[in-house]
Amino acid sequence: MSDYCVAGVDLGGTKIYTVLAGSKGEVLAEIKMPTEAAKGPEHVIDRILESVERVKGEAPPSCRLRSLALGAPGPLNTSRGIIHFAPNLNWHNLPLGEILEKRTGVPVRLDNDANLAALGEYVYGAGRGASDMIFITISTGVGGGLILGGKLYRGAADGAGEIGHMTLLPDGPRCGCGNRGCLEALSSGTAIAREAGKLVAGGGGKGILAAAGGDPGAIDAAVVACAAAEGDPGAISIMEGAARYLGIGIANLVNLLNPSLVVLGGGVMAAGDIIWAGVRREIRARSLEAAWSRLSLAPAGLGDRAGAMGAVALALGTVDPLE
Amino acid sequence: MSDYCVAGVDLGGTKIYTVLAGSKGEVLAEIKMPTEAAKGPEHVIDRILESVERVKGEAPPSCRLRSLALGAPGPLNTSRGIIHFAPNLNWHNLPLGEILEKRTGVPVRLDNDANLAALGEYVYGAGRGASDMIFITISTGVGGGLILGGKLYRGAADGAGEIGHMTLLPDGPRCGCGNRGCLEALSSGTAIAREAGKLVAGGGGKGILAAAGGDPGAIDAAVVACAAAEGDPGAISIMEGAARYLGIGIANLVNLLNPSLVVLGGGVMAAGDIIWAGVRREIRARSLEAAWSRLSLAPAGLGDRAGAMGAVALALGTVDPLE
Repeated sequence: MSDYCVAGVDLGGTKIYTVLAGSKGEVLAEIKMPTEAAKGPEHVIDRILESVERVKGEAPPSCRLRSLALGAPGPLNTSRGIIHFAPNLNWHNLPLGEILEKRTGVPVRLDNDANLAALGEYVYGAGRGASDMIFITISTGVGGGLILGGKLYRGAADGAGEIGHMTLLPDGPRCGCGNRGCLEALSSGTAIAREAGKLVAGGGGKGILAAAGGDPGAIDAAVVACAAAEGDPGAISIMEGAARYLGIGIANLVNLLNPSLVVLGGGVMAAGDIIWAGVRREIRARSLEAAWSRLSLAPAGLGDRAGAMGAVALALGTVDPLE
Repeated sequence: MSDYCVAGVDLGGTKIYTVLAGSKGEVLAEIKMPTEAAKGPEHVIDRILESVERVKGEAPPSCRLRSLALGAPGPLNTSRGIIHFAPNLNWHNLPLGEILEKRTGVPVRLDNDANLAALGEYVYGAGRGASDMIFITISTGVGGGLILGGKLYRGAADGAGEIGHMTLLPDGPRCGCGNRGCLEALSSGTAIAREAGKLVAGGGGKGILAAAGGDPGAIDAAVVACAAAEGDPGAISIMEGAARYLGIGIANLVNLLNPSLVVLGGGVMAAGDIIWAGVRREIRARSLEAAWSRLSLAPAGLGDRAGAMGAVALALGTVDPLE
């Protein structure tokens, strides 16, 4: 039995996922709660603390909370514990680290949610042992994190890892970030749904519309993946296009960073072989031999628990102790 | 006066650049010699050793050679000291480290030439103090190296830093690597000359042809830059295109790695404002705010001495001591 425990919190726009873990990262308790972001920062902070209290309530009484780490969306300052901007939470320059330290009485560390998902996969998931690992999650958006030389790589201002905003088609479709042809605008679930919507609006994609129960408003990436699995040619072409750009983006990362492992997660990867085969084909075609020869691809192992488990690893200082 | 010295060798397909330096990296002597690659590996190894003997001959007698480092083109194994393949030298799996250790009697380290140019700029040139720095050289090809967290980043198999083979236009022009639309195929001096040659062959680019003295075979990137400076619209458009793609490639690196500094060198950057302004514009447009706000751009400071000075830093173990 651990003599201490840590809390890892994955704070999202819609849900808070909190894990209480022992000194070896063993999960003692976990909880998912709605964020209720609309009620404002004070309320969300109360919700975070409530989630921590509730997991502590399930742990053995001997388990003393030693530290807490939290992953949040958007740009932040990891050393000062400030969230600069969290779009889904409508937060600006919130000193969340200090606030949580005062309220919990333990040291608190913050990091980007995608970074912590990468760290979680590296320490507890599909990336164990791969000291040069890239984690990419492809769902509504495309996010990721870099494990380089066995450590989370944050860059000069905690801004590294924005894999989704790599330009792959300079005059391509508009991205949420304002630019054109970002990976996220080409391979995300949102991009897949957008292309399918255009096809259906133009009178095509019968199989997509059928998979959406006849409701164009219900078309999402999962619907397109279903239609592709059923053999709809338009859906197949859209999924293959998304896979191609994802493969190009990964090949760029492989040539640049020469990782031993790329871990892929998120809803789009759940479409199965149509995505994975296309991704592999394009990586093979565009990677330099020296980098390709040492590369493995793997599906993410922790699902939606990755961010909270990365927060546990950060709270424990497993690979990245406080200086 | 140093009680010991080290040798840094930059081995290229056409020339060997060797620097003898003291314990603080101060240059004691340097030499450039033709590689004479056509005469085979034995001859080139003799040339390397001759260059080292000649710089030692210029140093004070008290200066004992302690170690040697060498930068070579192409894929190699830094820990085993093996050059897997050096296209311009026609070498395959040459255990150069071991050979040079036997012949010199001192420890020898090898690395990729672009990596060592990056290291040279970081330790002695434009990158001093910037612990997250990207170095890119844009000349015949596009190469580079990554300084991450104050260290040269080599990846899982010494393959990192292949910035020139980032795909930016998936169906774009064919690259020397066999793929399409690599940065090198869009922004290198070779790419600029190729576009200018096509323009002239089609009857356009009068100013380019004039700058080449009327000889289409004499068109290179410097000629196109000259013609652009003289106001030739075709030349301007070609230079702006190269600058645009280079800026897109750098923006991708900025979003991915969040460096504090990007150092740009090589002949193409010598074209001046037409390249630099285009590069800055595109980086600004495509970088995320958090990464952009901490970014500086700087011209390389060491010119063609960068690789040999990086070899000096490696031989000294300045930022990357032998384990």
